[in-house]
Amino acid sequence: MSNESQLNNVPIDQIKIGMEASYSQTITDADIKNFAGVTGDKNPAHMNDEYAKETQFKERIAHGMLSASYFSTLLGMKLPGEGSIYVSQSLKFKKPVFIGDTVTATVIVTDVNLEKRRVFLRTLCKVKDEIVIDGEAQMYIP
Amino acid sequence: MSNESQLNNVPIDQIKIGMEASYSQTITDADIKNFAGVTGDKNPAHMNDEYAKETQFKERIAHGMLSASYFSTLLGMKLPGEGSIYVSQSLKFKKPVFIGDTVTATVIVTDVNLEKRRVFLRTLCKVKDEIVIDGEAQMYIP
Amino acid sequence: MSNESQLNNVPIDQIKIGMEASYSQTITDADIKNFAGVTGDKNPAHMNDEYAKETQFKERIAHGMLSASYFSTLLGMKLPGEGSIYVSQSLKFKKPVFIGDTVTATVIVTDVNLEKRRVFLRTLCKVKDEIVIDGEAQMYIP
Amino acid sequence: MSNESQLNNVPIDQIKIGMEASYSQTITDADIKNFAGVTGDKNPAHMNDEYAKETQFKERIAHGMLSASYFSTLLGMKLPGEGSIYVSQSLKFKKPVFIGDTVTATVIVTDVNLEKRRVFLRTLCKVKDEIVIDGEAQMYIP
Repeated sequence: MSNESQLNNVPIDQIKIGMEASYSQTITDADIKNFAGVTGDKNPAHMNDEYAKETQFKERIAHGMLSASYFSTLLGMKLPGEGSIYVSQSLKFKKPVFIGDTVTATVIVTDVNLEKRRVFLRTLCKVKDEIVIDGEAQMYIP
Repeated sequence: MSNESQLNNVPIDQIKIGMEASYSQTITDADIKNFAGVTGDKNPAHMNDEYAKETQFKERIAHGMLSASYFSTLLGMKLPGEGSIYVSQSLKFKKPVFIGDTVTATVIVTDVNLEKRRVFLRTLCKVKDEIVIDGEAQMYIP
Repeated sequence: MSNESQLNNVPIDQIKIGMEASYSQTITDADIKNFAGVTGDKNPAHMNDEYAKETQFKERIAHGMLSASYFSTLLGMKLPGEGSIYVSQSLKFKKPVFIGDTVTATVIVTDVNLEKRRVFLRTLCKVKDEIVIDGEAQMYIP
Repeated sequence: MSNESQLNNVPIDQIKIGMEASYSQTITDADIKNFAGVTGDKNPAHMNDEYAKETQFKERIAHGMLSASYFSTLLGMKLPGEGSIYVSQSLKFKKPVFIGDTVTATVIVTDVNLEKRRVFLRTLCKVKDEIVIDGEAQMYIP
């Protein structure tokens, strides 16, 4: 129902369990190179075709943290949105993301503590119907 | 003999509890803008001086995930290094990082399971002597 | 005299000893961070204020290869320009370039060999009146 | 004991002739575009498929200075590593690098002058078994 994209932030008393926001991006070589540039993570699994061919994945994979960083984007810009403060994030990297995969990151409210002004969310990245990253986030709303 | 390119990873049977690797960088506006560009996280707390002045931090802060991404760099390039696979990462964002702060990310081996080929590490970011991010990572060594 | 910027390339028989082309840029932290990202050169002398304070230069310096890469830009785009092929380049890094310095790269024709279709150039980077990089380039014109 | 962060540089008295360090990366369009962005080198040989088709190489080629910049990364970060100062570099561009080529940059110690605190290295870029860039570097260790 609620179209999150119209909101820069959602007041804590309007945040309900089950609300969600999503972002999708097709991951290309340019995304991987830019992320490697910003972070310094030039692991050959991300940068080197010849190396990657010999790994279990057979081709270069995206940085797990690249897909995970979309959670930060959703949490800080959409749900709960502007003004909320990142308290914690857990991440389980379940499957690799390959060049050409379209990753959909979703954050889903699982609990709200009005007294402590905390919002708890499940955070998922999927490629097609498969979960590639699973995790949980906690946000504080000042 | 000491071929530096072989130092890109540490074999699992040479990984001992207490081993560590670090990376330090002074966080500037360019880092924040580049990270915002790659991830889309244009939260005003990172991008907007006027907005930031009204927040509890009084100035723009770096993305927590930017500092956290240095863990990925260290884990995949130094310790355990090339070939290791990111299984999980937990992150507690304890303090903000401001423009001009020099962040030191450190990963420290806390346990090794040779049978399951897993390495467990504590992952810390510090600014001067204060912990700004605390967490744990688990790596699989094929 | 000849304003090189109007020419995408200069035919070899119009290239005369003494002809030159220049490019100037103020080097900022963003330039350094972008160059570090593309090349992976995250040497703390370029990235870390606290480290740099303890070095002989007292502050962060730009990558020598960043300034040197402006020679490639001039040689391939202005003089001799499009179509010319980089044969060789020597570089002497004489002084550091600091954030805020305006670097002027200049390439000056020192010799032309019409038979072998080679152009020889002196390549200089200056900050104010001081040479920071000195070198020579050789170009082949097919 | 073995603190990986100490491996960031090699003390001059432990540097021996024959020691080497390498870095490999598959060169893609994104690398070329990023390097062009940082340096301004938008030579059509790097940027324009239609132009490139008419050249002797038949397709776009990477900037020679992009591959050469990996020498700077290795010299300043691995061997001799942090704290060493770039004195000079010579470069012979022997073959073009095409999109999709995996470039391996290697620096090999050829001489050490303890008195003058200089390290001399051969610097090579290869694609498969062919040398694409050959050169020499001189480093000063303060």
